[in-house]
Amino acid sequence: MTATKDPTSALLIIGNEVLSGRTVDKNIAFLTAELFSLGIPVGEVRIVQDTLERIGLALNDLRTQYTYVFTTGGIGPTHDDVTAEAVAKAFNLPFEENVEASSILLERYGDQYTPARRRMSMMPHGAKLLHNPASGAPGFCIENVYVLPGVPTIMQSIFRLLSKALSHGDPIYTQSITLSIGEGAIADELRTLQEENANVEMGSYPFFKGSGQNITVGTCIVLRSKNQALMEEIAKKVEKLGIK
Amino acid sequence: MTATKDPTSALLIIGNEVLSGRTVDKNIAFLTAELFSLGIPVGEVRIVQDTLERIGLALNDLRTQYTYVFTTGGIGPTHDDVTAEAVAKAFNLPFEENVEASSILLERYGDQYTPARRRMSMMPHGAKLLHNPASGAPGFCIENVYVLPGVPTIMQSIFRLLSKALSHGDPIYTQSITLSIGEGAIADELRTLQEENANVEMGSYPFFKGSGQNITVGTCIVLRSKNQALMEEIAKKVEKLGIK
Repeated sequence: MTATKDPTSALLIIGNEVLSGRTVDKNIAFLTAELFSLGIPVGEVRIVQDTLERIGLALNDLRTQYTYVFTTGGIGPTHDDVTAEAVAKAFNLPFEENVEASSILLERYGDQYTPARRRMSMMPHGAKLLHNPASGAPGFCIENVYVLPGVPTIMQSIFRLLSKALSHGDPIYTQSITLSIGEGAIADELRTLQEENANVEMGSYPFFKGSGQNITVGTCIVLRSKNQALMEEIAKKVEKLGIK
Repeated sequence: MTATKDPTSALLIIGNEVLSGRTVDKNIAFLTAELFSLGIPVGEVRIVQDTLERIGLALNDLRTQYTYVFTTGGIGPTHDDVTAEAVAKAFNLPFEENVEASSILLERYGDQYTPARRRMSMMPHGAKLLHNPASGAPGFCIENVYVLPGVPTIMQSIFRLLSKALSHGDPIYTQSITLSIGEGAIADELRTLQEENANVEMGSYPFFKGSGQNITVGTCIVLRSKNQALMEEIAKKVEKLGIK
């Protein structure tokens, strides 16, 4: 664990199946929540098509702006799995067989180690394997980019192991206050409160319950800060806004 | 309905609540599936922070590459609702009160039409209102950008109305074939099939059922094409791959 101050992250979700609506992505929800709790907040997410060009463009844009980038999807054995090659191209590194990955896969598949499965050992030169406790095919890391599979359970088990080695940030405290009042009725006071307290980020999220004539309107105010005492002080002020 | 050939789209999801993992986004799944069925496939999705700069950068990148861009979130009355202003800046247009929006909101709120609520009538010059059957606050459209609220039910009701006026593409046919075999075992033949049939896009998605010693491995092959007859022919060949 190195000592990057205020680390940040971005997610690059790869796959036509998410863009077509066939697969409902579950990796964004998991990774954003995990990274937030590690003090490495996600600043941006992109979902792109599985082509060398699209992955490369997005990756080069993100990896220069954020401390870490996590990609999911596209590292299996089929023709539509082009993530590893795209990462090599984006870094301008040779795309070559990783000997360690190859030996893991050979042990797993034996005489079923087909050309397609051999592709799963192809990685950018210098890639470090990410241990995969759930199945044989390894993810990898190159510089600040972590390349993970798309299957949620496998992705999660790899992430839980690799996250120990990330540079964690100061914890970000968070507190939610639910008010039984529409956000329009408190928005002016809330804006003033935010302007006076830049160190506490205030999000305002309306909600609606019931239907027809019985609909009730409410607002959830979410506070986030690295200063817990200040956040709790603001929370009390927000609660008072709900009493009108 | 104009006659754009092969229209495409992108989604811009706005909001810190999604990036922090607090809110699990539901708009991506809805919009990708709806747009796919309209023949306006989503080519890219971005989730960005609710700042003028981040929204503006992403919007200007996307609106020049895709036929349509749909944004969700950040058009309410609170300080963290900056989407409309960001869109005006991105288009380099004046950010001004929309008279039609203002009159709808005034009618709804009467003497509760506070400065905060008045902000919901502020839009880029020339914006066209998007009718909102579910609640008072309207979305809007400017050139090829459709600005929608983040609350899923409200977003969906506006989208269903506006989608009738979009330029629909030729229908994209899709067919899924589930094989009881790991994708590594068919990947080489599948690659050849894809290389020989560029007009049918083939996606391969592994799945795992059960746990421990009783895990079964399978593959779902998803075909997509504008040529239904060719797709059905390929589907038969894919089914044969599963018999080994």
